[in-house]
Amino acid sequence: VTLSAEVLAIGDELVYGRSVDTNSAWLARRLADLGLPVVQISVVGDGEEYLRRAISTACQRSDIVVVTGGLGPTEDDRTRRVVAKVCGEPLRFDEASWRDIQTVLKVYTQQGRAIPVSNRLQAEFPESAQVLKNDCGSAPGFFVEVGGCTLYALPGVPREMYAMWDAHVQPILRTRSDQQVHAHNLHVVGYREADLGERLQDFMIEGQAVKVGITASRGQLTIRILGFDRGLVDSAATAIRPLLGEHLIYEGEHSLEEEVGRQLIKHGVTIALAESCTGGLMAAALTEIPGISSVFLAGFVTYSEQAKSRDLGVDAAILTEHGVVSESVAAAMARGAATKSGARLAISVTGIAGPDGGTPEQPVGTVCFGLYFDGETSTLERRFGDLGRELLRQRSVREGLVWLCRTLARID
Amino acid sequence: VTLSAEVLAIGDELVYGRSVDTNSAWLARRLADLGLPVVQISVVGDGEEYLRRAISTACQRSDIVVVTGGLGPTEDDRTRRVVAKVCGEPLRFDEASWRDIQTVLKVYTQQGRAIPVSNRLQAEFPESAQVLKNDCGSAPGFFVEVGGCTLYALPGVPREMYAMWDAHVQPILRTRSDQQVHAHNLHVVGYREADLGERLQDFMIEGQAVKVGITASRGQLTIRILGFDRGLVDSAATAIRPLLGEHLIYEGEHSLEEEVGRQLIKHGVTIALAESCTGGLMAAALTEIPGISSVFLAGFVTYSEQAKSRDLGVDAAILTEHGVVSESVAAAMARGAATKSGARLAISVTGIAGPDGGTPEQPVGTVCFGLYFDGETSTLERRFGDLGRELLRQRSVREGLVWLCRTLARID
Repeated sequence: VTLSAEVLAIGDELVYGRSVDTNSAWLARRLADLGLPVVQISVVGDGEEYLRRAISTACQRSDIVVVTGGLGPTEDDRTRRVVAKVCGEPLRFDEASWRDIQTVLKVYTQQGRAIPVSNRLQAEFPESAQVLKNDCGSAPGFFVEVGGCTLYALPGVPREMYAMWDAHVQPILRTRSDQQVHAHNLHVVGYREADLGERLQDFMIEGQAVKVGITASRGQLTIRILGFDRGLVDSAATAIRPLLGEHLIYEGEHSLEEEVGRQLIKHGVTIALAESCTGGLMAAALTEIPGISSVFLAGFVTYSEQAKSRDLGVDAAILTEHGVVSESVAAAMARGAATKSGARLAISVTGIAGPDGGTPEQPVGTVCFGLYFDGETSTLERRFGDLGRELLRQRSVREGLVWLCRTLARID
Repeated sequence: VTLSAEVLAIGDELVYGRSVDTNSAWLARRLADLGLPVVQISVVGDGEEYLRRAISTACQRSDIVVVTGGLGPTEDDRTRRVVAKVCGEPLRFDEASWRDIQTVLKVYTQQGRAIPVSNRLQAEFPESAQVLKNDCGSAPGFFVEVGGCTLYALPGVPREMYAMWDAHVQPILRTRSDQQVHAHNLHVVGYREADLGERLQDFMIEGQAVKVGITASRGQLTIRILGFDRGLVDSAATAIRPLLGEHLIYEGEHSLEEEVGRQLIKHGVTIALAESCTGGLMAAALTEIPGISSVFLAGFVTYSEQAKSRDLGVDAAILTEHGVVSESVAAAMARGAATKSGARLAISVTGIAGPDGGTPEQPVGTVCFGLYFDGETSTLERRFGDLGRELLRQRSVREGLVWLCRTLARID
């Protein structure tokens, strides 16, 4: 039997669009991995009426409901009270939780101040609820039966929520499901979504044991294969792989930067970056990977012509003759970064991210890349169009990472 | 009369937690700005049954429903068909949209290939729907009356959705609302959420004309004041401001990096960055700001000791004596970045982001900052605890930006 799960995020800042709800995707993924597919994610504000309606609807519809947010100490934190109302139960004050809260907030006592009275409210739970301990914050969670559904209430602060899930919720839910969702991703560039969709249409008909979907993001298409049977998922991947040819750049659920980082570390290839329009974004992506310090030799953010000459040794004559956004300058930047740092591999980016700086010959979105590897330098120019500054920078980082990925795949 | 709005995002990758739904927050914010507060955001998968239920429920509950996703050319794109069923209407093929699609996909014809048949499906709409033109992709949107509700169906690709909203949807919705939501944000550091909540509790009681909420994110608290009456929002801000003292770092709906960027540009203060554990993240944050190139002189990502010496001139003796994560090294890095680039202001970060590298004396989460300004160098050390690599890097960037923000606020 597949139990159905639902996720509910609470907060005015979410429905007013002032924050993006990242908790629900995090939870949905973990629920799916436990074989508890999420059928709906809902987001509602702090207002009591909407909150009550959303909680009762979710509990009527699904077997498991995971709620995040509204467990703080302030007036607009209403989850405890509203869940108690939906259960038709009074709130009870839990002495043990109050002691835990006092321990977390010991900084007050250490400073000779009283713990705010409002924090006491965080130790109140619906009468029949069981408490979920918060190991890194003052908001304990809880779970409670609501009709035939179990509702889990977790804090909205991501770090606290993650820790509570890992330590207390996931072990409980693991016992409630006897199956698991398996996933396999194939990442593809240089294909149009419709073309790829037509090639894969036999795999995408609804109701099959394996679900195949395509998602487009920043110039990359991801083919997601999902199913309860590991063997069927693998067979689908085996059947799809030959259709992709050289468009397939890597496989797996990890990100492109992680793939590049892993390959750099695995092959012990040292790297340096020279970034102009991406302004450190590519360095930031690669240095997110733990252990990268063994191969990451240097990153240069050289926005100005002076910085390109001074920090990378780009010849002023090249800058004058070819212009700062040119394949010649990109080549010189990559060579300079490699020479300065002694890296075996270096990549450079110089382009026009906008909103200003475009010309008819070089419109906003023109980006040049240089790649230095083992003494050889290659370049390429891309015209991404005026995607807007943020997207253009991200698109440029992805293009650079794809090139690094392809280069590293040729090693050995 | 306040009309209520609702947002619905469609995609298996969203309910399986493989992608974060950012479209809904973007739309919710714009709807709120138009005086059309969003009462619920929902996310469902591609499956026809759940999709149909979510669409009918939303249309029964709200006056305006904005749907994103499911307009692509592939088998798993079912929005057109399901909305037609909910309306009880057949699909009609729209010749004009098909011509538009052919124009967008002219690359096929240019290459002598036929446009995929599946793209033809994108020109089918519920019979009474009006088409919304897609100016940057092949998926047209549409809007249609469903009972007393108007449903707007927009593509899921963010860039196409943004453009369709700005050009075609927002102008229509503007005529449907005679009010507007006003917002004012106050950004605060160095306060505990409960303490701040107690100070502000009189403002946070439900049902007042102005809503005041507190959100915590990466060591910063944001007080959000929202209301339909600009004067009341301003009065609340005026009443709250004196309660915050030196904890208030800046005001407005823009991000901290944007505040720092704006101040740098406004005062013409040139800046350089020297990053170790943040690996380019701070440079990436600042270079996101348009126009920053006039003041951003250089960014150095110096992960290794060699890079710190070579690129920033940090004395090897300081590294040996004080260790790479130390206030002395942070000071030398900031001075080095300023000297190398000639910047008036420079900031440095060196710390232990983990998961490895911590010691009992210097646990993971120890981060040192150096700030050089007009010849003077200051340093500080923070112990953030083992928040995990990603959060620790973000927390360090925020700490650095707060310091820059405070420094720039003292100019003039």
